[in-house]
Amino acid sequence: MKKVVALAGGVGGAKLAWGLAQILSKDELTIIVNTGDDFTHLGLDISPDVDTVCYTLANLANPETGWGRQGESWNCLGELKELGGPDWFNLGDLDLALHLERTFLLQQGWSLTAATKYLCEKMGVVHVVLPMSDQQVRTLVSTVERGVLPFQEYFVKYHCEPTMTGVQFQGIESAFLSEQASTALKECDIVIICPSNPWVSISPIIEIKDVKSILSTKTVVAVSPIIGGKTVKGPAAKMYAEMGIVPSAAAVAEQYERLIQGFVLDIVDEDQMQQIRQCGIIPFAVNTLMSDNSTREKLARETLDFAERIKKV
Amino acid sequence: MKKVVALAGGVGGAKLAWGLAQILSKDELTIIVNTGDDFTHLGLDISPDVDTVCYTLANLANPETGWGRQGESWNCLGELKELGGPDWFNLGDLDLALHLERTFLLQQGWSLTAATKYLCEKMGVVHVVLPMSDQQVRTLVSTVERGVLPFQEYFVKYHCEPTMTGVQFQGIESAFLSEQASTALKECDIVIICPSNPWVSISPIIEIKDVKSILSTKTVVAVSPIIGGKTVKGPAAKMYAEMGIVPSAAAVAEQYERLIQGFVLDIVDEDQMQQIRQCGIIPFAVNTLMSDNSTREKLARETLDFAERIKKV
Repeated sequence: MKKVVALAGGVGGAKLAWGLAQILSKDELTIIVNTGDDFTHLGLDISPDVDTVCYTLANLANPETGWGRQGESWNCLGELKELGGPDWFNLGDLDLALHLERTFLLQQGWSLTAATKYLCEKMGVVHVVLPMSDQQVRTLVSTVERGVLPFQEYFVKYHCEPTMTGVQFQGIESAFLSEQASTALKECDIVIICPSNPWVSISPIIEIKDVKSILSTKTVVAVSPIIGGKTVKGPAAKMYAEMGIVPSAAAVAEQYERLIQGFVLDIVDEDQMQQIRQCGIIPFAVNTLMSDNSTREKLARETLDFAERIKKV
Repeated sequence: MKKVVALAGGVGGAKLAWGLAQILSKDELTIIVNTGDDFTHLGLDISPDVDTVCYTLANLANPETGWGRQGESWNCLGELKELGGPDWFNLGDLDLALHLERTFLLQQGWSLTAATKYLCEKMGVVHVVLPMSDQQVRTLVSTVERGVLPFQEYFVKYHCEPTMTGVQFQGIESAFLSEQASTALKECDIVIICPSNPWVSISPIIEIKDVKSILSTKTVVAVSPIIGGKTVKGPAAKMYAEMGIVPSAAAVAEQYERLIQGFVLDIVDEDQMQQIRQCGIIPFAVNTLMSDNSTREKLARETLDFAERIKKV
């Protein structure tokens, strides 16, 4: 039995994780999710990426947005606005239940890992979803226009409009992998880095103590979140440009240099394969746009097969 | 200009407060509300009686139940149940917004009085609603079947079914009237004790330091929450019986002996007027059932007029 760990952020990562979950059993696949985006809002402990992955795996996610719940209502948020409360973060009525229950569990002393396990069971998520850490890591985006912003403010409140000058992960030095995440990573054969934002979704996971050294003993394959110089969703391409790098699949591969052996990019970016090979990374071009369930599953299968082939090399 | 303070609990008190608010200006009427029922649920700071009074004054209350919001939806609560969370307390989606915003304000260091003022403004409540205290007082009901219960568990979770053996107000010794409530009480001419539960809605207010001595200098009139030996809503009659007292308007008047000069009872209880007079209390019998807005306003007017007449005596 092969063991696979997927590293994921929000929407894009969740889609590939869903595809992998259609192919691999719960004993074969573990998904480790970024928690750098987590924040406390109105006293609620919110884990946006964990929620997106769980909702997607439970087939509860809104297919239009990729985040939040299908059939969501917004009655509380509308009233919150009437009361002068902050309405910039989209708190759906169904989504709120998850935040309330998680906040309650954490206040009772549960770890985020234990709370996520419990909530996954309740939602019918079969596969193991692990927050990257039970310690608090907070992604802060330094911007030209608005100084240092907590990630959700940068992302949701300011719609990624401010110009990024850098990113930091507050608390990363004292955070460590949970025992469960550490075991899963150590025991796996293959690590798949999902098509999530390298700057703010994957970096926080990789920067945690010991992760790089564990990854160095594994077959690691990343899937490009950039297609034709653009992202399907989110600010990754914009971030590359603001950091002085032309956004491209090759730029992502270069950012993962010495971390990955294989790189899955879109066929529209085939011309970058030579550049990627020069980094010592094996490129593999397929259709990477996950527009529906069948393309999610297809990309997952192609990525797994590719990783298996590389492993044998 | 006459100054009136109404002491109120939940639904019954809110109805009379609404009636008074139709007659008296915001400079003439202040409503001091029981906070012994307050509790923390799923990390939310909830003030059931304050909310009922505010929703009623803002014409936002559910006319069927008397508590909660008109046009409420229950999507979050339904999902909370799915997630295995506690669903015994009725958290409507609209109502949740109020709890979230208040909890947030309290966590920012606001007093309950300041948070209530802010939220009242947002809801369009014209009159001043004051929580009885900014210190935490918690009503605990001692019961035969389930031991000591926090009030909301007794009231909502167990539907007032356990047999009461006594009631205590945890924290009452160290609680004091807020400056605003103290000033309002000291400056008023007339105090109206609304038809709320004497055991658990009015007693907590009266037991706060200095309240009895301030009341002793005022014209105080109470309105009976018991009509024909029964309550319109809530466990007051059941509590009298369990405490070994036959529930009646006269029993309420006797409980308020030495505190009130006048007592408004329903005409169905006219035969108890002599018994009430024997306590040194002036009885006044009218229709006290507040079945619609016009009867609320009528009872408010008759109560005010009665208090004025007593004052002149």
